[in-house]
Amino acid sequence: MKKTALIMAGGHGERFWPRSRRNLPKQFLSLTSDGKTLIQLTVDRIRPLVDSEDIYISTNKDYADLIHEQLPDIPKENILFEPVGRNTAPCIGMGAAFVSKKYEDAIMMVLPSDHLIKYNQMFVSTLKDACDIAEANPALVTIGIAPTFAETGYGYIRFDPNNTLNRGYKVQNFTEKPSLEVAKEYVSSNEYLWNSGMFVWKASSILERFERLMPDVYENLEIIKNAINTSQQNEIIEKVFPSFPSISIDYGVMEKSDNIYTIPGTFGWDDVGSWLAMERIRKTNEFGNITDGNVMTIKTQNCIIEGHKKLIACVGVEDLVIVDTDDATLICSKDSTNDIKKVIENLKVWNRDEYL
Amino acid sequence: MKKTALIMAGGHGERFWPRSRRNLPKQFLSLTSDGKTLIQLTVDRIRPLVDSEDIYISTNKDYADLIHEQLPDIPKENILFEPVGRNTAPCIGMGAAFVSKKYEDAIMMVLPSDHLIKYNQMFVSTLKDACDIAEANPALVTIGIAPTFAETGYGYIRFDPNNTLNRGYKVQNFTEKPSLEVAKEYVSSNEYLWNSGMFVWKASSILERFERLMPDVYENLEIIKNAINTSQQNEIIEKVFPSFPSISIDYGVMEKSDNIYTIPGTFGWDDVGSWLAMERIRKTNEFGNITDGNVMTIKTQNCIIEGHKKLIACVGVEDLVIVDTDDATLICSKDSTNDIKKVIENLKVWNRDEYL
Repeated sequence: MKKTALIMAGGHGERFWPRSRRNLPKQFLSLTSDGKTLIQLTVDRIRPLVDSEDIYISTNKDYADLIHEQLPDIPKENILFEPVGRNTAPCIGMGAAFVSKKYEDAIMMVLPSDHLIKYNQMFVSTLKDACDIAEANPALVTIGIAPTFAETGYGYIRFDPNNTLNRGYKVQNFTEKPSLEVAKEYVSSNEYLWNSGMFVWKASSILERFERLMPDVYENLEIIKNAINTSQQNEIIEKVFPSFPSISIDYGVMEKSDNIYTIPGTFGWDDVGSWLAMERIRKTNEFGNITDGNVMTIKTQNCIIEGHKKLIACVGVEDLVIVDTDDATLICSKDSTNDIKKVIENLKVWNRDEYL
Repeated sequence: MKKTALIMAGGHGERFWPRSRRNLPKQFLSLTSDGKTLIQLTVDRIRPLVDSEDIYISTNKDYADLIHEQLPDIPKENILFEPVGRNTAPCIGMGAAFVSKKYEDAIMMVLPSDHLIKYNQMFVSTLKDACDIAEANPALVTIGIAPTFAETGYGYIRFDPNNTLNRGYKVQNFTEKPSLEVAKEYVSSNEYLWNSGMFVWKASSILERFERLMPDVYENLEIIKNAINTSQQNEIIEKVFPSFPSISIDYGVMEKSDNIYTIPGTFGWDDVGSWLAMERIRKTNEFGNITDGNVMTIKTQNCIIEGHKKLIACVGVEDLVIVDTDDATLICSKDSTNDIKKVIENLKVWNRDEYL
């Protein structure tokens, strides 16, 4: 069966400020040493499974130029513009409408555009396994990640280790972000995986779920599907899409469905959730520092320093994240990276849009 | 008796990097909120006592333009260029030669150009008292500073509280930078003052000391004095000055002389020795921060942040000195400001003169 992919690239990624901006979110940044952006890496990873012409990218109009520039071989008609952000359920629904319009039915891999994966071959092999399950029956397959620590920032997937289908395990339920105590239990139980937000299913399988669980959404998806490749396609999307509820695929579909399987991924996944991810992605030097660009360190330890054009001289500091850009420099303690969003909130209040 | 002043402005001031540079040392920086540079404030302070035409500035050729620009009313012929740096003794000797050439004898106040003084009237009053002592006899008068804490970075002056002359006290001896323990003893004894590097004497008094204690230097000072206002003045200085030993006035003259008096100064003196001085000079906000320029702070405490054009966003940091300039940004822990000179050492090793 034909394999397609929907790459979700509408995120704003405020946590990588000041490098990420409204007009340059995280997925369009290069954070690794190979110079490729996160979305380029995402597309490159699935090329062994999916032709360029079957890769769809869901985003918003502001990022059209970035996508054409960074992914010139993706056909323009495969770039799906959401007129407004409505979380993942409508985004995925519209993707399924496009896939099912093009091919009566096809496998559809749904992938975030701003994650990193260390072992590409294992990733591809996991996706293939997921495709096998999804093709053979109308199951929804979610790629779980074997947890390596008690992360409280992710959702978890509980699976039944005794109920398998090929290489997948039957999902028992999804849970929201747990407390640290609960997260520790999850990790030690060996029956939970992190919810990575990567899914594999047939377009028909997910559309059937929409029909059953979100019938109003499904009705509008049908309207969109009918308009695809007509002169009214964009006009209809502009009109219909804003009426979708803002709801995640997890909440809208996954948590309410049965026949869900998960495959535990062990391919070095990283959601690159904050600047601290640099310590997992990049090599630290003998002082525990990660430095890039025009940087001098003296008696400086365990810092992440992203230099730019200016000389950044660090003296006697530790556990800092320092990021320099053309017009703004961030100096943040490592245990305060969650507060970077407050900088953005302040900038909005102060009407200093030039820094957003 | 005519009063003159010699302002020593040859220093490089590496401790204020990155704002201070080779071509813009500390004395030419504005560090206070009134916008005046340290050398402008120095000259303004003594204007009630000394005419512009009797103010001499000792510096090196690199700073000629800065001085003309910042102090346009000081006559060009009063700017004394040291061909090479030879510490304070030769600098002061040459100043005395110029003063004694112009006036047979005159009071000479010797002042650093890069200190701050809070109470100008008390400063002027102290200088007047010093002039009175210096005029009446061939004493050397040094302005001491009543110590406010056990500073280990200064030299100390021991005086005899029972041996007074007008408002001055007889100096018993000078001591180099003490250990913390010794410094504490000094402060509690009430018989020690900080050595501020400010002196008052007659030109004849200091030249007599040179003659006695540094006869080789004196001989060359005589050669310079004879050349002053002749067509050969600069040529002679260029030739003679480099032969002077590099030696401080404290070591070369003060420590070996008798008939020295000190007046305890209580005029809010600050040698502005490092970025930490900002906490004494400027007002901190409710979070203990001193911020200037384009700065945003979130959960940030007790920092000194000198913004410039770029937005500097600080999140969850404390006890840092952050200084932004056009081409370099310093991020330094408050207890490491002494290591800023290592940045400069490194820059020299790396041949990155553009940042020096």
